[in-house]
Amino acid sequence: MPKPDRILMAHGSGGQLSHNLVEQVFVKHFHNPILAGLDDAAVLPPLGDNARPALTTDSYVIHPLFFPGGDIGKLAVCGTVNDLAMRGARPLYLTTGFILEEGLPLDDLERIAASMAATARAAGVQIVAGDTKVVDRGSADGLFINTAGMGLVPEGVEISGANARPGDAVIISGTIGDHGMAVMSRREGLNFSTPLQSDCAPLNGLVTTLLETSPNVHCLRDPTRGGLATALNELAARSGVGIEIKETQIPVRQAVRGLCELLGMDPLYVANEGKLVAVVAPKDTDKMLTAMRAHEYGAEAAIIGRVVSEHPGRVVLCTPLGARRVVDMLVGAQLPRIC
Amino acid sequence: MPKPDRILMAHGSGGQLSHNLVEQVFVKHFHNPILAGLDDAAVLPPLGDNARPALTTDSYVIHPLFFPGGDIGKLAVCGTVNDLAMRGARPLYLTTGFILEEGLPLDDLERIAASMAATARAAGVQIVAGDTKVVDRGSADGLFINTAGMGLVPEGVEISGANARPGDAVIISGTIGDHGMAVMSRREGLNFSTPLQSDCAPLNGLVTTLLETSPNVHCLRDPTRGGLATALNELAARSGVGIEIKETQIPVRQAVRGLCELLGMDPLYVANEGKLVAVVAPKDTDKMLTAMRAHEYGAEAAIIGRVVSEHPGRVVLCTPLGARRVVDMLVGAQLPRIC
Repeated sequence: MPKPDRILMAHGSGGQLSHNLVEQVFVKHFHNPILAGLDDAAVLPPLGDNARPALTTDSYVIHPLFFPGGDIGKLAVCGTVNDLAMRGARPLYLTTGFILEEGLPLDDLERIAASMAATARAAGVQIVAGDTKVVDRGSADGLFINTAGMGLVPEGVEISGANARPGDAVIISGTIGDHGMAVMSRREGLNFSTPLQSDCAPLNGLVTTLLETSPNVHCLRDPTRGGLATALNELAARSGVGIEIKETQIPVRQAVRGLCELLGMDPLYVANEGKLVAVVAPKDTDKMLTAMRAHEYGAEAAIIGRVVSEHPGRVVLCTPLGARRVVDMLVGAQLPRIC
Repeated sequence: MPKPDRILMAHGSGGQLSHNLVEQVFVKHFHNPILAGLDDAAVLPPLGDNARPALTTDSYVIHPLFFPGGDIGKLAVCGTVNDLAMRGARPLYLTTGFILEEGLPLDDLERIAASMAATARAAGVQIVAGDTKVVDRGSADGLFINTAGMGLVPEGVEISGANARPGDAVIISGTIGDHGMAVMSRREGLNFSTPLQSDCAPLNGLVTTLLETSPNVHCLRDPTRGGLATALNELAARSGVGIEIKETQIPVRQAVRGLCELLGMDPLYVANEGKLVAVVAPKDTDKMLTAMRAHEYGAEAAIIGRVVSEHPGRVVLCTPLGARRVVDMLVGAQLPRIC
């Protein structure tokens, strides 16, 4: 039988074609001794005494599959690596579940698998288990990916959205809105003189740098869906504190600001895939900011505000003219299928 | 805003409606202290010295969502619990990723979440992390679920598809084909005097029973997609051995046999979701069979064949008339979207 160039229903049957697909695409790109066992579950080496494992999962349904600065595969690795890193965990292992639509070009799948493998290498994680399902044409939109991740939280690290304290500084690791606007520009077929790029990146290295600089990191969050505004609202609500941010301090690229204005969007609510918000004790703030700026994924880090005891659960934005407005959580849907 | 009765795009925005959905459906049903943190990742208690973690993942795309004997939620918990159990691991934690189609009735989602919660309780696992994505109408078929699972392999347990040895006995824990034929009967609107029921069940208790009875369990596999024939072919290939099975020894319900004949299907290739194949050393075979039969999910367990050194990688079926035929892996797709 000649090798098909598109996904067939039989690729999901569990039979010969499923096995070929797993061997010729996934095992080939993700190769590591644990995955190569192809058993029902991967058995891992012991984690060590007192090690606290961290677990997380995300599904990725982004449209289109390829966008400036990344693709659904890179995103599926970064997103889950970053969720682990936001608890201070060192990411170690990923699992991946593919839902493929009948007719998906095999070349696209292979590009995506190669991209996942390269991103996993860059982040220092291994893809140790996987699953592939195929649904009939019209029952899914090309390809969905789930990744689950496991990491280890180093002793003494206690980072949680509930740990913000009045007086803490709020740091963003760089410009906001790049991912969402890059995807929008591709989706809408917009061309700019300076093309927008997604910021999609694994942030575990940046988190390690931060934790090596100071133990006084209280909260970390990656402002993905719902953007910076949503991440800050979650932190304020979970910690029972208020947050005040200064509009002029928030880094936004000119091209992102321009496209947001054009489309009537607010960069505060636009998704990022390579940024983090850190809430840190005032003590080591400058040291931490300097360390972040020395890292490739934190070069444009900035202090954007502080935690206050007033208006618990609320985020307040101070505008350049001195006005103050409440930044609510998003109620409707701003950008569907952005991750 | 009144509570919507269907999934809206905004349920996937990461904003207020996403939070409501998570709190009012998922946290409500899956409630446990780890999940309640709602951080980017769940941090778990230490696993203990020398404990080997096991990791696995599966996505579930079954159609229809509800079928006799189960639903996609029950299946999503059992399938992943069983994959862990097939390595001898004690399942502990699950993560779950939902991909919802705009327009899905919220009542259906709630029924499915309740079913997942009940099955997780029965299997003794906690759902500790989750994710929800929404795709626009027509971009998915109702609801897809991914679950990833983590368990612990007890010291001394070494179960793998590569461990079958000539002379080993091959045991099936009960009747084959029930799940696939129950789903087919619902899908095709067929009614029978004795309705077919899926065998969907968590098998970790049965595996514990087996391992407590004897350490001589070499391979375990749950014959899901591709059925018993595919599972046996995988074991033969991975272990580099031949397998011989006796047609008359394989338990098949009359109703399943009848529907298979009607639809031109072979029960050997039909999916099961509550059965396992055990390849065990000859020494304790009878003891293990007795122990399995005393368990609710192993009452109809039977020895169906043995491992041989001849024809490595091949499965041979001996018919009642004494003929021998090779049972190949499936090449085409027999039943799409069966799990």
